[in-house]
Amino acid sequence: MKFFEVAPPKKVFEVINSFSPVSEELIHIDDALGRVISEDVFSPCDLPGFFRASMDGYAVRAKDTFGASQSLPAILRIKGEVKMGEIPKIKVGEGEAVKISTGGMLPEGADGVVMIEYCHRIDEETIEVERAISPFENVIAPDDDVKKGELVLKKGKRLRPQDIGILAGLGIASVKVYRKPKVAIISTGDEIVPIEKEPPPGKVRDINRYTLSAFCRSLFAEPVFLGICPDDFSRLKDLVEEGLRIADTVWISGGSSVGTRDLTLKVFESISDFRLLVHGIAISPGKPTIIGTVKRKPVVGIPGHVASALIVAEVFMSRLLRRLSGEDPVQDPPKIEARMTRNIESAPGREDYIRVKLIEKDKQLYAEPIIGKSGLISTLVEADGLVRVDMNKEGVYEGEKVEVIPFVSKGLW
Amino acid sequence: MKFFEVAPPKKVFEVINSFSPVSEELIHIDDALGRVISEDVFSPCDLPGFFRASMDGYAVRAKDTFGASQSLPAILRIKGEVKMGEIPKIKVGEGEAVKISTGGMLPEGADGVVMIEYCHRIDEETIEVERAISPFENVIAPDDDVKKGELVLKKGKRLRPQDIGILAGLGIASVKVYRKPKVAIISTGDEIVPIEKEPPPGKVRDINRYTLSAFCRSLFAEPVFLGICPDDFSRLKDLVEEGLRIADTVWISGGSSVGTRDLTLKVFESISDFRLLVHGIAISPGKPTIIGTVKRKPVVGIPGHVASALIVAEVFMSRLLRRLSGEDPVQDPPKIEARMTRNIESAPGREDYIRVKLIEKDKQLYAEPIIGKSGLISTLVEADGLVRVDMNKEGVYEGEKVEVIPFVSKGLW
Repeated sequence: MKFFEVAPPKKVFEVINSFSPVSEELIHIDDALGRVISEDVFSPCDLPGFFRASMDGYAVRAKDTFGASQSLPAILRIKGEVKMGEIPKIKVGEGEAVKISTGGMLPEGADGVVMIEYCHRIDEETIEVERAISPFENVIAPDDDVKKGELVLKKGKRLRPQDIGILAGLGIASVKVYRKPKVAIISTGDEIVPIEKEPPPGKVRDINRYTLSAFCRSLFAEPVFLGICPDDFSRLKDLVEEGLRIADTVWISGGSSVGTRDLTLKVFESISDFRLLVHGIAISPGKPTIIGTVKRKPVVGIPGHVASALIVAEVFMSRLLRRLSGEDPVQDPPKIEARMTRNIESAPGREDYIRVKLIEKDKQLYAEPIIGKSGLISTLVEADGLVRVDMNKEGVYEGEKVEVIPFVSKGLW
Repeated sequence: MKFFEVAPPKKVFEVINSFSPVSEELIHIDDALGRVISEDVFSPCDLPGFFRASMDGYAVRAKDTFGASQSLPAILRIKGEVKMGEIPKIKVGEGEAVKISTGGMLPEGADGVVMIEYCHRIDEETIEVERAISPFENVIAPDDDVKKGELVLKKGKRLRPQDIGILAGLGIASVKVYRKPKVAIISTGDEIVPIEKEPPPGKVRDINRYTLSAFCRSLFAEPVFLGICPDDFSRLKDLVEEGLRIADTVWISGGSSVGTRDLTLKVFESISDFRLLVHGIAISPGKPTIIGTVKRKPVVGIPGHVASALIVAEVFMSRLLRRLSGEDPVQDPPKIEARMTRNIESAPGREDYIRVKLIEKDKQLYAEPIIGKSGLISTLVEADGLVRVDMNKEGVYEGEKVEVIPFVSKGLW
């Protein structure tokens, strides 16, 4: 018995890639960690902007050291010292040397730095240099780090500490980024109660509100919880419409029952300009997922089962949020290679996502499938990541090399 | 010429592991993503707490299906339907079946669920069941997900969305976590100017303030910037003392010069109860790193060079922050296997950290070393991670398999 025509995951990724990023805002770089820049950044200047020593030592004219060796050192006169942060007043002439620290500005006349390790002070005024340097050795040229006009950060890049650092170095204190995508989250189902309540038999607490919210935050998106909605068409429709007004995407989590699944789609279809793009995905768990748009805003029906919901979030919603955040290209996470500890069967015709724990033994990483009924949240708590079993495979075997997809928010790594 | 006795990285990790976590606080689970729990959490109840269907289908007595097959189906009377979220009023007797959705409560008398795919409705009151189920098939028992009294989350775990989810499921709305470690950051050096200023020749903008702050945030720590300090003993001492008053650890970044390095240590040594633990690390870059404690609070001198500073942060300060955050065990990040695209020499007797870019070609991941002078921030902007070259190795070779350590804050992955 088939409920609907399911889409292969590849098609779902294509659908998600067709969505447009949210609008932009200007923020200070101190707030920019993890945000995605929305325009190419070109350097307004050279960095460091002057000739700089990259080693502690003596600034010299390189040719004065030519031929120098331990047995036949070059003898140079010390003319003084470069002070950090200042334009040196001393010039370096033929046969002269000036003491300099890493980061100091190269004095006029000098074209290289001899590392202090190769200099021996004979007296107050004289050093022996026991190694030759070539011109510009141990020196950073004014545009060695960044050239004026150079593209330093490409639009679509998610900013890491070093990316923020290069902006700081160039004096770019504010940067245009995409807004944090706002995600309206609705939990549905007659069986769902708020977590503060003791659920009577038959009912369960609203887990998805919290896992999906935390998941959004882990991707620098902003969750807005609209409430728990019973299986009631007009109340659900009101909430979806509210979500469309205030957020960039609306996610309905639930319900587990066939009836509720129908309700989500019915509500979506009752909204004008709704376009259905995905009605079921050929994966397990997570099949009953619905993706569509209302005036280009993605609306999503996520399975109510807590484990399915989070796996759909990890596999598809992470990409949706990256896309809305303006990440370009949206990248796949690097996989971790491991060997399966046991056989796991899988039905062909769908992609299976197996929860696994990573175990290191004798310097080999193993992926241990989590045993337990598949809908349970505890199986995800035990897991470190997911192993994807290809649509045309019938399973994975003990000892087989697999690629583990780490969770997006995996306790940092 | 040797400036000081450098510590092998292993010893530095031991030093860091000896530090104690910061104090605790009680927070709502909605704020708990990425935070580390500070006490074991045991379940106050069974989850889900009742017998629950894990499939859409019919609740039956398993023995009524024994022997059923496609050619010889069991014939059962439909007695009604279980409503989601309710205690079923109907009982299942011999030869009876009750329609049920995933998540529904199993009615009295039933001990299993036949998937809807194997049930054929003959008329309003009758179904044919064409497959036998065993007792409790497609059923989640009251304590299948979590047993009352079970340890669900261990002290020292950094909370992911699913960990927050299990707390929600158990009705634990607030959780004890370690505070965010507060990191006082001081930039030193006569050559450092605020990023808003146009630096005259010889001076550079304060990059480290921003990279180190963002780095702290990426590990859920809270940076507090105390200011740019010139190379002046008493002003630096005042700032370190202020840092010790308000923060959990104090980091001085800078300076590049030998003089400034001496200054950092002199200031530390002038503070009572200072204990020097690490004076130089056998790594490149990052050698002139100082680690000590003042009344058990870690104080750190980080090299002023922007690239060295961030590599020291990635390799050692990440572990320091994880330790202060209460993470237990402090885990190594999973490495990514790749092959070097070219030879890189390395001096034995120290660990080298090579900046690399990951490139995928023909399904093989390659680590491409970033060419460029080593102190430059641009080399880190281009890099995806670091390759560690062991102390006793003289380099890595083209084609050699290496482990790439992804950056802590790597644009998410």
